[in-house]
Amino acid sequence: MMKRVKAIVSYDGTNFSGYQVQPNKRTVQGELQRALAVLHKAGEWHATGSGRTDAGVHSLGQTIHFDTPLSIPEERWHLALNSLLPEDIVVRSAAFVDGSFHARFDAVGKMYVYRLWTGSEKNVFTRNYVGHIPGTLSYNNMLAAARHLTGTHDFTSFSSPKTSVEDKVRKIYSIHIDQQQDEWEFQFIGSGFLYQMVRILTGTLVHVGTGALSPADIPVILAGKNRSLAGPTAPGNGLYLTKVFYHPDDLHRETAAVKKKFK
Amino acid sequence: MMKRVKAIVSYDGTNFSGYQVQPNKRTVQGELQRALAVLHKAGEWHATGSGRTDAGVHSLGQTIHFDTPLSIPEERWHLALNSLLPEDIVVRSAAFVDGSFHARFDAVGKMYVYRLWTGSEKNVFTRNYVGHIPGTLSYNNMLAAARHLTGTHDFTSFSSPKTSVEDKVRKIYSIHIDQQQDEWEFQFIGSGFLYQMVRILTGTLVHVGTGALSPADIPVILAGKNRSLAGPTAPGNGLYLTKVFYHPDDLHRETAAVKKKFK
Repeated sequence: MMKRVKAIVSYDGTNFSGYQVQPNKRTVQGELQRALAVLHKAGEWHATGSGRTDAGVHSLGQTIHFDTPLSIPEERWHLALNSLLPEDIVVRSAAFVDGSFHARFDAVGKMYVYRLWTGSEKNVFTRNYVGHIPGTLSYNNMLAAARHLTGTHDFTSFSSPKTSVEDKVRKIYSIHIDQQQDEWEFQFIGSGFLYQMVRILTGTLVHVGTGALSPADIPVILAGKNRSLAGPTAPGNGLYLTKVFYHPDDLHRETAAVKKKFK
Repeated sequence: MMKRVKAIVSYDGTNFSGYQVQPNKRTVQGELQRALAVLHKAGEWHATGSGRTDAGVHSLGQTIHFDTPLSIPEERWHLALNSLLPEDIVVRSAAFVDGSFHARFDAVGKMYVYRLWTGSEKNVFTRNYVGHIPGTLSYNNMLAAARHLTGTHDFTSFSSPKTSVEDKVRKIYSIHIDQQQDEWEFQFIGSGFLYQMVRILTGTLVHVGTGALSPADIPVILAGKNRSLAGPTAPGNGLYLTKVFYHPDDLHRETAAVKKKFK
């Protein structure tokens, strides 16, 4: 009898051409499916992710599902997969779920974190894990801009024109900005994010932070529905998919916790 | 007129075959000398380091010297070199020194830090930066072993037999062990360290920590002068050369500070 497994996967995106399988490229999905094929003694085995991440982008919370006829107990599934996965992917947890669960279509929201370093010197140890944009940022101006971005908007201006998605309306539940000297963290919780949207949101907030844009420009950029109006796309190496939400209650609880903490 | 420059260099050792130049290998010294050759518009240019580090070993304090006829001001030297160095090497500071200064022969001591993770799960983000040896360690037993190792000893048992160095007597000024849950940090300050000595010291301390060896075994291991008596060589990826000392006063001040802090 087939069982459906839901698994949460961390990966260091540095040496991957993104999440989704591509011919002749090393991808996260490709490695996961290779491990599953070995485990099932099959030529190939499919896993469905919650969505793509770009080259260099990391994950602490990518969520996948796959079906299996194997009798591996629930609490051993992450170990079975980890023994077959390369050192830059780890299954953090795995659980049996109802056969109707779908990692992509059932997702009601996602959380991303962008880690940014604004110091002038390069850091050899964080170069793959923290985006580096030297400069001085205004916390208050970025906060004001973030308030304009929060809510339900058409995010055409904040997505790559390469996307084939037609409906560009998304809801951002919260944006939280944290600073410790030259280390910044931008946390985004939303219903979903368009192609490169988090990186363009971050790049635009940074432009507001430096004064290249003002907070009052944000409503104009949103209304313009044109990618060229927003700021640059922040580098992929600072971006982390940290959580995928499958229950509105979890999503709202997390959003409320962020709002309470940083009110 | 030739000036001598002393520079402090950080590097991520992950993608290097160690510090020292080797034919057809990517090395830290090779990259530094390539940058110097470009800067001097010369076919090659020599830099002398304080000593080697192995493949995968990192640095926050490697110290080098080189001579130059260029008229670059002192405060611009690190920028000039950083503009030509790859992303995994950075010159932290550079200063003019007396022409008699020698990065290797004038070193009176070194500090190394070994970062260790003992949790059962692998961590995809620290895999190149923290040694991973799963297990439970006794702090008190390791501290007792460290006391036996501190002082002036023949460290033949704690060095790779591959070394060509004949005099195996070294002085360890201090060993400090720090723990935060499953993250451990071992700091060693010594007059100098033999080939793989810090990694063998760490591997031996870990064996004492797990109970495979007892603290009372350490004097026996030292007296035996045989590599096979000591514990395993800890992986290179957790090791950092953090400081090279050129003045006995600095060395003694740092050692006293460690002893005061952890008395």
